[in-house]
Amino acid sequence: MIDVTLLGTGGMMPLPGRFLTSCMLQINGHSILIDCGESTQTAIRSAGLSFKPIDLICITHFHADHISGLVGVLLSMANSERKEPVTILAPPKAAQVIGHMLVIAPQFPFELYVSELKNDVLPFDFEGIQITPFPVKHRVPCWGFSFYLPRLAKFDPDAAEALGVPRILWSRLQSGEDVELDDGRLIRARQVTGKERRGIRVTYATDTRPVPVISEVGRDSDLMILEGMYGNDEKMDKAMHDGHMIFEEAAGIARDAGAKQLWLTHYSPALPDPEAYLDAARTVFPETVCGTCGMHTLLRYPEDGR
Amino acid sequence: MIDVTLLGTGGMMPLPGRFLTSCMLQINGHSILIDCGESTQTAIRSAGLSFKPIDLICITHFHADHISGLVGVLLSMANSERKEPVTILAPPKAAQVIGHMLVIAPQFPFELYVSELKNDVLPFDFEGIQITPFPVKHRVPCWGFSFYLPRLAKFDPDAAEALGVPRILWSRLQSGEDVELDDGRLIRARQVTGKERRGIRVTYATDTRPVPVISEVGRDSDLMILEGMYGNDEKMDKAMHDGHMIFEEAAGIARDAGAKQLWLTHYSPALPDPEAYLDAARTVFPETVCGTCGMHTLLRYPEDGR
Repeated sequence: MIDVTLLGTGGMMPLPGRFLTSCMLQINGHSILIDCGESTQTAIRSAGLSFKPIDLICITHFHADHISGLVGVLLSMANSERKEPVTILAPPKAAQVIGHMLVIAPQFPFELYVSELKNDVLPFDFEGIQITPFPVKHRVPCWGFSFYLPRLAKFDPDAAEALGVPRILWSRLQSGEDVELDDGRLIRARQVTGKERRGIRVTYATDTRPVPVISEVGRDSDLMILEGMYGNDEKMDKAMHDGHMIFEEAAGIARDAGAKQLWLTHYSPALPDPEAYLDAARTVFPETVCGTCGMHTLLRYPEDGR
Repeated sequence: MIDVTLLGTGGMMPLPGRFLTSCMLQINGHSILIDCGESTQTAIRSAGLSFKPIDLICITHFHADHISGLVGVLLSMANSERKEPVTILAPPKAAQVIGHMLVIAPQFPFELYVSELKNDVLPFDFEGIQITPFPVKHRVPCWGFSFYLPRLAKFDPDAAEALGVPRILWSRLQSGEDVELDDGRLIRARQVTGKERRGIRVTYATDTRPVPVISEVGRDSDLMILEGMYGNDEKMDKAMHDGHMIFEEAAGIARDAGAKQLWLTHYSPALPDPEAYLDAARTVFPETVCGTCGMHTLLRYPEDGR
């Protein structure tokens, strides 16, 4: 399961009642925070989420509305008695930028690992979650992130029984490991498991023009969270100039990716009522929803139902 | 007149519904922002105030809850089309600290003057407002600020008439200037004005133990805004260790200063209901009020009534 909470939906400036765009994923006891603009710590509290389990903070880019709340979040994490290391994944020069920002912070009771994003689109494993950062197209270097929680293939106890595998070894086979029996036989995991099962994918990208990599990496996403900076093409010139998207462009990405659902976020402060532009986006991708601060969903493995 | 808005009342961490401690003074068309923790830009919007007239930002000290919102406020000021220079008055190393914080900010459309506070208690003039910064006693170097709006002595037109002063020179005399007439006579302003009139004083101090300088500089304040980090002396050890005050200590300062009113602010996040401790503070200084976010008052010259 992936528990998704859209903490905020504002671009550029936080407004009363609209926090800056940020998102929390809770997966297998690990929390991942994506972006961290000013007031994110308040958004986390408003959503009733905890600071302590935040193991990873992914920063899309270094514009203030995506990082200015970092010190506050780290201070609240320190206050939550977190002792375990925290990893921050952020664009190049992250160590330098974050180092500068921490000038107003004390020593934290946990270690901070800062890891810099690369332009290669390569997934990596984080606590059993496959994370794929991908570069997008904004005025400054900016990344999107796709999170995939794989699912183990179904274990076939009858097959294991038939092969004479002692029960004590079943869990290793179930987790995909091959095992050697006392009699010397090698049992492959695939001999006792069914066909591969689909996991859960969440893809997040804001502050970008609609580049193909988003739908490529985000293929078959259960949920896409994409920016809807402007409602319609009246603002297309500005969107193109500043590296942003209008609603229908985001909807086009979700359609191209074959996504199940799209949440729009990162609204311009000049867009007080995003719902007014929703119908047009739905003509492109019907499962489009205007994200709201604190919006939450629990994504289950497909066969488990919802 | 001094228009005072208490933007936030929280210490340490912003909470849903409680912004970090910050205050806006509006005096003669100039706005002065005191402290600037995370979410201050949202607090300013919530209070319905403008970013453009902020000419001076006074920072008490460099703990994150008093400065982490600076970049956001400056960005909102840039967005308000402000072009005039902005002055930041802050503790020593201000240029370095603020320079580091601005790593995530673009070039602003206004000049930023950074002025560092000194330990001498010396008033200076800022746009006709007398500002006295004074060092207080916290874990790190920290300052309070007293703002005094002087009032011109009352002009006596009969006296001016009797002395044969042409009307064209009256406004100069009224503003306290001596003038020379065409016939060579020097007319002193005091010859045509009545006795000195009291102005308006607002004094602000948070994050400090109750040191005498606060009531000395803040003598006869029309309004004192002081921290009430903790409700009562159950937390006295912590208050003494961390350089904070309990409600009754703040009330004692207002009493010693002969203040007209005290607003408490900068509540600990562990103090959800400050009103619960108000009665005890009022036994020390009856005109004590628990500050709330957005609380506002218009202070007039004494004789003008309220």
